Amino acid sequence: MPTYTPPTKDMQFVLHDVLKITEATIPGYADLEPDFTSAILEEAGKLTSDVLAPLNAVGDKEGCRLENGVVYTPTGFKAAFEQVKAGGWPGLDMPEQYGGQNMPAVIGSAVGEMFSAANQAFTMYQGLTHGAASAILAHGTDEQKDLFLPKMVSCEWTGTMNLTEPHCGTDLGLMRTKAVPKADGSYKITGQKIFISSGEHDMADNIIHLVLAKIEDGPEGIKGVSLFIVPKVNVNADGTLGARNGATVGSIEEKMGIHGNSTCVMNYDEATGYLLGEEHKGMRAMFTMMNEARLGVGMQGLAQAQVAYENAVIYANDRLQGRAVTGAQAPDKPADPLIVHPDIRRSLMDQKSFVEGARAFILWGATMIDAAHRSGDKDADGLVSLLTPVIKGFLTDVGYDMTVKAQQVYGGHGYIEEWGMSQFTRDARIAMIYEGANGVQALDLVGRKLAQDGGKHVMAFFELVKSFCKDNAGQDAAFDKDFIEPLKSASKDLQAAGMYFMQNGMTNPNHALAGSNDFLHMFGHVCLGLMWARMGKAANTALANGTSDATFYETKLATGRYYMARQLPATALHLTRIQSGADTVMALDAANF
Amino acid sequence: MPTYTPPTKDMQFVLHDVLKITEATIPGYADLEPDFTSAILEEAGKLTSDVLAPLNAVGDKEGCRLENGVVYTPTGFKAAFEQVKAGGWPGLDMPEQYGGQNMPAVIGSAVGEMFSAANQAFTMYQGLTHGAASAILAHGTDEQKDLFLPKMVSCEWTGTMNLTEPHCGTDLGLMRTKAVPKADGSYKITGQKIFISSGEHDMADNIIHLVLAKIEDGPEGIKGVSLFIVPKVNVNADGTLGARNGATVGSIEEKMGIHGNSTCVMNYDEATGYLLGEEHKGMRAMFTMMNEARLGVGMQGLAQAQVAYENAVIYANDRLQGRAVTGAQAPDKPADPLIVHPDIRRSLMDQKSFVEGARAFILWGATMIDAAHRSGDKDADGLVSLLTPVIKGFLTDVGYDMTVKAQQVYGGHGYIEEWGMSQFTRDARIAMIYEGANGVQALDLVGRKLAQDGGKHVMAFFELVKSFCKDNAGQDAAFDKDFIEPLKSASKDLQAAGMYFMQNGMTNPNHALAGSNDFLHMFGHVCLGLMWARMGKAANTALANGTSDATFYETKLATGRYYMARQLPATALHLTRIQSGADTVMALDAANF
Repeated sequence: MPTYTPPTKDMQFVLHDVLKITEATIPGYADLEPDFTSAILEEAGKLTSDVLAPLNAVGDKEGCRLENGVVYTPTGFKAAFEQVKAGGWPGLDMPEQYGGQNMPAVIGSAVGEMFSAANQAFTMYQGLTHGAASAILAHGTDEQKDLFLPKMVSCEWTGTMNLTEPHCGTDLGLMRTKAVPKADGSYKITGQKIFISSGEHDMADNIIHLVLAKIEDGPEGIKGVSLFIVPKVNVNADGTLGARNGATVGSIEEKMGIHGNSTCVMNYDEATGYLLGEEHKGMRAMFTMMNEARLGVGMQGLAQAQVAYENAVIYANDRLQGRAVTGAQAPDKPADPLIVHPDIRRSLMDQKSFVEGARAFILWGATMIDAAHRSGDKDADGLVSLLTPVIKGFLTDVGYDMTVKAQQVYGGHGYIEEWGMSQFTRDARIAMIYEGANGVQALDLVGRKLAQDGGKHVMAFFELVKSFCKDNAGQDAAFDKDFIEPLKSASKDLQAAGMYFMQNGMTNPNHALAGSNDFLHMFGHVCLGLMWARMGKAANTALANGTSDATFYETKLATGRYYMARQLPATALHLTRIQSGADTVMALDAANF
Repeated sequence: MPTYTPPTKDMQFVLHDVLKITEATIPGYADLEPDFTSAILEEAGKLTSDVLAPLNAVGDKEGCRLENGVVYTPTGFKAAFEQVKAGGWPGLDMPEQYGGQNMPAVIGSAVGEMFSAANQAFTMYQGLTHGAASAILAHGTDEQKDLFLPKMVSCEWTGTMNLTEPHCGTDLGLMRTKAVPKADGSYKITGQKIFISSGEHDMADNIIHLVLAKIEDGPEGIKGVSLFIVPKVNVNADGTLGARNGATVGSIEEKMGIHGNSTCVMNYDEATGYLLGEEHKGMRAMFTMMNEARLGVGMQGLAQAQVAYENAVIYANDRLQGRAVTGAQAPDKPADPLIVHPDIRRSLMDQKSFVEGARAFILWGATMIDAAHRSGDKDADGLVSLLTPVIKGFLTDVGYDMTVKAQQVYGGHGYIEEWGMSQFTRDARIAMIYEGANGVQALDLVGRKLAQDGGKHVMAFFELVKSFCKDNAGQDAAFDKDFIEPLKSASKDLQAAGMYFMQNGMTNPNHALAGSNDFLHMFGHVCLGLMWARMGKAANTALANGTSDATFYETKLATGRYYMARQLPATALHLTRIQSGADTVMALDAANF
């Protein structure tokens, strides 16, 4: 049975040594002293490793069960959800006005990684609620906020997002769910939605569905889509529960993974719904949820890779197999542990250098969200908007690959469900798909985000890399060689790709889109390269200042050197592919595939 | 529900246009006229697509069931197995003397791909039997052959391989299963084996287990391992069945995939066993099975990628989503099909160019096996021995990735079991693990095969690439640019990697082993590059000669150009990683991971 040990020490390193959060001028950050953040992380760590992680395999094995319209979650989920609520975790970064603790996103993200790593399927119940509450917070009327938010912030009620229909996912303009205005200002919602995570379950008294639908006689396509609040049980003006609404679960899906989360077909049969935000502006309101959700999904990629990596390390140290090629390392034992073998180490270093880089990337992104929300920093807002598809797409693609590598360390045992490594890959797989499949992320990055605000944000990103290199080069030859030079070279590749798109995408946009996946991946590598350079610098600083924990910082430097030498050079391959253009990609008639 | 359409036309192209099998001087090849091979392929295609493919999802859903020592296979498996036997398919490439049809391996491989693609779990029952029969054929006494082979060639009895024990897989020197000689020349076998595919089931009257065990008081470690024939039911000298032997199933494993195959814990309790081959030379005998099995597993990587790709193409043509960026392609429909989008095409071209290249690679490998076995060609034997870990490791690693890409084309539906795309990835996953995990393949390649016979075989491979380039360059500028130049460049990368190993591996073998995975992958790319260059040439020839099917050959050229432009350049990245050496890989103490 796998275990989970939250990487709190590494989180503290990123928060304090690298991002130096207490020195930032973002409201709320001054309070985030190391002792304070440590207390939060340790507390969350205890809950996730002791309570949620042991339920991960239970959820996978039992799955959810639909009986007479009621979905039963796996054994232990309900009690654990009560513990999570009692600890106030769902409202950690929500406004105090609605019962939250008003913590910055950077803390919410660190804690969120732990929840997802310990039990992704379980954590989705509160994750979806958080997203729905954020949308109501951003677009709801005061009445709507007062009516729904306190119960959602505490997770007494949970929330969902309803976008997909059987015939349309990405292309929501094809949507058929209808909204008919009623005399009292509410709407009758009718239609079917599929793939609704946490759509029905037994852990909350009410479920607040956010549903996209088309108001009768509105504009065609995506411009006629509006967002509605559709409670499972109607809510009276005084907040008490009324009659059951016409929102019911039709069935639950059998999926490859995240069995502990109920993925529902939802039927809306003249259900009462309340417009959230403006008429026909549903997509805008939905994107509030989507952007937050995309960052959260990127975090899932990291989280599954982290827990899978931890278990791979344990197995590689325990399992005896063969001898080190350079001579026995454990001569007293019948064989050496797996970890002596170079190819096992290669795999573990791939994993370690990814998860630590990804963690820094996610937390850096969270500081930008805080800067945007708390300080109104438009540049930070623009940059994190640019990076959102990279965080989602790159971290889930690579995070999945890393769970596969971790599983591989177990050999045959990795394929047996009892050992739990298969679940990490099966659970991680969904993150590449939901909240916009990764192909859509790449399209969003290349087709929209690159050119946003006249390309200002991507230029700012390059400037950031450039100034980091300039400020830190020439002081330490080893650092230059191991960190600065590889980062410069990768960033140059990324710029060359952007240049290729500019020069060729104008005449034929396929030249840009055929390279979108490669561009997303090379962008991800450059981001992780930047993170590793910053972490390397922080480690050097700590070592230079004298530290009682030199091993930690030296390990950090060694891991960074691995990433720079073995992973970051992938940018050159991506560039080659991009520069080969669209011709070979688009050459075939559809009939000839 | 997925479908399977056997790629018989593409197989015919490889057999006749590329490999020109009827022109080879290998015994049996002259008979392989296009009409003849077409008849076999069409017949096998019908059986696999109509009978086996529909049972694939059934097997996944139902799995195998153990009740009172009996394993029940999924609904329909038994009847299908009878059909397979009635058609004589299990003995297709086995000697006529034992009831087989004596077809060359190149035909067996083409048919084998279809069986694996249609239903991998089902096909393993006959696949393991084939391997066990081959080992008896190679190492058995005449009595053993006469007693066991006729029933195994027909699959009236099936076979298994018993290597792994709970505490040892790759490192079989740690084995504990004991063999105690009896007065009559047989042995009492006692011990536990795990991960035994097809170990127990209800489709055959007897199961012939080949079991590795240590004869009491023999040499320590791997040098004391012998191979034994242990029938489930004892076989009398006249071939009739006797009493039940002490070989019983302890339990069946719950696995990530291949649910239709029973993966058993086997208990041997003083079971009667007969020495196969020489005492303490069990590993040598087992390797007869293993090498064949490794090629078969490489084929599984191709097979799952093929069937997943086919279904991805169907979905990409059916599913309407968004509009082509260059203007609507299906203006009469509410949206364009997925296949108009460049990133979907990139994914499909990755898949198509891989499966077609891999098919040529496998069939080329099979011609070398035929040359070795039928013509005693030692060079062919040496080359296919070198390429075996590449076929196994590269085709299963990349084959798996391709099933993941195919699944991704389905978006959310790819994650729902009902659509069947998840099964392809879950089934394909095992091929990276069994018959020697891919890390072991890389070790075999770099640590053993490269230097075999003084490096003669790898030099022969480079020579082969070089002479192809020399013979075909300078006739057609487009062919030079699209095929010859990329192949030359990739081959140069591979040679540079070999050179790095030679120069640095002597002083520190970790410098070679830290790059073993990258070397295996770059070798695989060069092999597929060579295959594509040969296929490109064959297509050009067909077009120049005038063909009624120009579209087929033009599509082949376009697909080849894609591989050469977008996939083959990966060799440069692998070389960079290899040349970065072992230092970053080996830097950490085991405790610091």
